[in-house]
Amino acid sequence: MKITQVRNATLIIEYAGTKFLVDPMLAKKGIYPGFEGTPNSHLKNPTVELTVPMDQICDVDAIIVTHTHPDHWDDAAKSLLPKHLPVLVQHEKDREIIRISGFFDVRLITDGQFNGVTLSQTSGQHGTDSALSAMGEILGEVCGVVFKSPSEKTLYLAGDTVWNQFVQDSLDQFQPDVIILNSGDAQVIGLGSIIMNKQDVREVYKAAPQATLVASHMESVNHSMLTRKELREFSAENGMTDRLLVPEDGEAYSL
Amino acid sequence: MKITQVRNATLIIEYAGTKFLVDPMLAKKGIYPGFEGTPNSHLKNPTVELTVPMDQICDVDAIIVTHTHPDHWDDAAKSLLPKHLPVLVQHEKDREIIRISGFFDVRLITDGQFNGVTLSQTSGQHGTDSALSAMGEILGEVCGVVFKSPSEKTLYLAGDTVWNQFVQDSLDQFQPDVIILNSGDAQVIGLGSIIMNKQDVREVYKAAPQATLVASHMESVNHSMLTRKELREFSAENGMTDRLLVPEDGEAYSL
Repeated sequence: MKITQVRNATLIIEYAGTKFLVDPMLAKKGIYPGFEGTPNSHLKNPTVELTVPMDQICDVDAIIVTHTHPDHWDDAAKSLLPKHLPVLVQHEKDREIIRISGFFDVRLITDGQFNGVTLSQTSGQHGTDSALSAMGEILGEVCGVVFKSPSEKTLYLAGDTVWNQFVQDSLDQFQPDVIILNSGDAQVIGLGSIIMNKQDVREVYKAAPQATLVASHMESVNHSMLTRKELREFSAENGMTDRLLVPEDGEAYSL
Repeated sequence: MKITQVRNATLIIEYAGTKFLVDPMLAKKGIYPGFEGTPNSHLKNPTVELTVPMDQICDVDAIIVTHTHPDHWDDAAKSLLPKHLPVLVQHEKDREIIRISGFFDVRLITDGQFNGVTLSQTSGQHGTDSALSAMGEILGEVCGVVFKSPSEKTLYLAGDTVWNQFVQDSLDQFQPDVIILNSGDAQVIGLGSIIMNKQDVREVYKAAPQATLVASHMESVNHSMLTRKELREFSAENGMTDRLLVPEDGEAYSL
């Protein structure tokens, strides 16, 4: 497989001959206001420019949207992506939301396969239990996806989740070889981390002792509190550099 | 002029021969989650269906977006409205946001005219001072619009504002004959009304003793606390029925 870190949680994953665009946020730098009630809300989103050309981003076979928060499915994506592209989503509610924008081929990840790639939907939790009870539907439902094919290693895209039992269960069930973690430690004021922080990444590193980890969703939205530099230093201090990759935007790995 | 109440704050205003579509929210009933942190957030938005046919909604000369909150400019509008239609907005920030969705002719209301209709942008405040200081950018900047033409009465579309000095100033400056008020008393929990409630409507009624008032933005989103029935009863109790119109969705007035 080849994984290209585009920007934020946006990735291009080439897997068993099929190209998936994941969680497209495609606006140019600084179009949207920062997320209110989060750190650095005075910063505009996205905080950095796209580095991958739009024609490369649009040249995919399908789009996966793990959830419809605006940093994973933005107005630019709705407008710029070809409407005929299949979009794979977590549930009927997101299917309806995405159809509103004119995408007519919206499928459920739980259908179980795309182009011969076996897809399994996993659960996640976009924050701690207390954050979820405080923020309710704003944090809402998220998902991850496991990719399997006889010709590829097993890939687990965890999505917007903190480290918790859902992630442990997915590791137990699927024994992934490659794991993409949204690791930018996005925070809500008073509620803490709503995606993985560096300690969460370390927990996954320990819980999946054979897997290669790829850190995504970093340094691109206002409320992201963990820099790549800090994660790399933490990785070095904790002996994780052998299996933890921290790509820059535009960087790609063949795994 | 002819004013058609479409649904929510969405209106078609035919003025001096030009048709303006105002604040389009075009999704079918129940597509979006309720606004978190507001009353009845368990209800899905919009809470009612569109009653005006889409071809009539699209058959306009321009779109006015008073601000880009999702109940005034939604994914369905972004997708369904013809991209060539001029869109008139309050400032460069909203111009950029709307351009992202593929509308290429986005103009500023402050340009001052459209098709010979003189347009003036007015200020508003989407909540009390304390609400604004608590919610900051989420409530953000809003505007109203005054329409003038030698062949028409003067129309003041107040937009998402509570009764305050901005509205008083607009009445003083423009002496409108017809005033459209967003009167559904949308509320945020702990912060109170963020658009006009019935007392606000009464203040405008008193402050503009010659004007006809049209109550819009009612009974269509979860956090709207004032029903048409209650406003009509209040209007009768306070002797306002001579100049206060409370249209149903789909109803039109020639004024």
